[in-house]
Amino acid sequence: MSKGQTRRLTKQHISSGGASGIFGEDAQVHDQSVGRASASVFEKLKQEYQKYQFRFRQTISKQEINEKLNSIDKRLGETLFVKESKIKPDGGIIEVQDKDKQWRVVLVSEAKFQGKDAENIKAGVLVGKNKDQELMVAGNAIERVYKNINEIRNFMLDEYHFPYAVFLQGSNFATKTVQVFKPDGSFVEIRHDSGAMNRIDRVTAANYCMQINCNYCKNIFIGHKNSSIMLQAASIYARCEPWKEDEMRKIMMDIANTSIGILNQLG
Amino acid sequence: MSKGQTRRLTKQHISSGGASGIFGEDAQVHDQSVGRASASVFEKLKQEYQKYQFRFRQTISKQEINEKLNSIDKRLGETLFVKESKIKPDGGIIEVQDKDKQWRVVLVSEAKFQGKDAENIKAGVLVGKNKDQELMVAGNAIERVYKNINEIRNFMLDEYHFPYAVFLQGSNFATKTVQVFKPDGSFVEIRHDSGAMNRIDRVTAANYCMQINCNYCKNIFIGHKNSSIMLQAASIYARCEPWKEDEMRKIMMDIANTSIGILNQLG
Repeated sequence: MSKGQTRRLTKQHISSGGASGIFGEDAQVHDQSVGRASASVFEKLKQEYQKYQFRFRQTISKQEINEKLNSIDKRLGETLFVKESKIKPDGGIIEVQDKDKQWRVVLVSEAKFQGKDAENIKAGVLVGKNKDQELMVAGNAIERVYKNINEIRNFMLDEYHFPYAVFLQGSNFATKTVQVFKPDGSFVEIRHDSGAMNRIDRVTAANYCMQINCNYCKNIFIGHKNSSIMLQAASIYARCEPWKEDEMRKIMMDIANTSIGILNQLG
Repeated sequence: MSKGQTRRLTKQHISSGGASGIFGEDAQVHDQSVGRASASVFEKLKQEYQKYQFRFRQTISKQEINEKLNSIDKRLGETLFVKESKIKPDGGIIEVQDKDKQWRVVLVSEAKFQGKDAENIKAGVLVGKNKDQELMVAGNAIERVYKNINEIRNFMLDEYHFPYAVFLQGSNFATKTVQVFKPDGSFVEIRHDSGAMNRIDRVTAANYCMQINCNYCKNIFIGHKNSSIMLQAASIYARCEPWKEDEMRKIMMDIANTSIGILNQLG
């Protein structure tokens, strides 16, 4: 079957505004899913560590981050333009109370969806301005993921752990090339090494380009001439197919457990 | 004059597609301007430090950043999906060759435009879906600024300096409230403390919320229990009105000079 024939065949499947509708739904489902996983981790932590107090927050204010920074060094945490500025990671923030009654972060989670090519191909939807492409050139919205990572790094500058889980999902985050079948039985490849498709490289500065799909909750210290520097790496989980709520829950629980282990070691 | 009358009066000034046209032009002019300022700094450095070799690059490949990371610690710099991935700061990268023939970064610059409310108000252009608003609710594209900052932080993880200048310009970056006059002589306020307008707080995690409009080229070391951690702060310059090429050039030259001073101290 020629490419032209395929195009004519699949064009009939396009529904009005289908593409953006699908994108919106998927992104929302993904966000809600990490929120549910996070809520479930919160409940499990309360059960497993009954002697500790936990709390769950949807947001942290910039004011609070500034106060923390300023308590570490007087030069830091001085600038705030909009009083009510806050950050809102998709899966919220889970904290535990230490023996000095201070709240310490044990888990922050975000979920980002980008690239709905697999869904479009399966549905036989063509995309692009003229609705004649099988694949959409990837966008760069994912680069916004760094903001909250940098905010939480600052908030946890005096800690030995950085429990930040990022779940990337969608055709822009395929870790291997995927064959997706069209309604007519032919397939389209979503390549993991295509500059037009893959956007994982736009996120990996957040984990110093270490392997992805690993728990980096424990900070790494590396020698720096006469001193040492602390690396706070995000734990980046990426793939084309949707993360299931239960998979996210397990990964997040593992990271929260690592946090508590590190906090306990410190006494 | 009532708000309704004002609206009717200014509506006639709307040209088809004017809003996005203006935005595109301004953003482009701003980008070119930092590029010219950077080229001019490059020439000046060659004149002022004739015994040194300088080079100017538009891009750095992720591969090269990975190699640097990997040379610092074997765990780092391991992940690359798209071989040709690279970063491209608006004003490029200026480097100097040290006595061991290694290239060391002395300046990286970016220019970001967001919010053309001042231009729209002056032109009497109303905005929004129904073209009936004087001010546009600010977007979040600026959050993408962190990606290149994090990439260059990684590339310079073994340095004592971080010569990263970010010029923010537009109504989303006003540092004080500005009154902008409409063609009819009345004015609209662009508030610096409005959550709907100001986006500086979305960038300040990159300088640990220190004061803006300062040169933070020299890294800060702060105590961290038994060790110390190194802060690499971006030098963030923000305001509503356009940065002039000459102003940017002076700031960038100052940062480049600081870099060379620090590299010289190290011998």
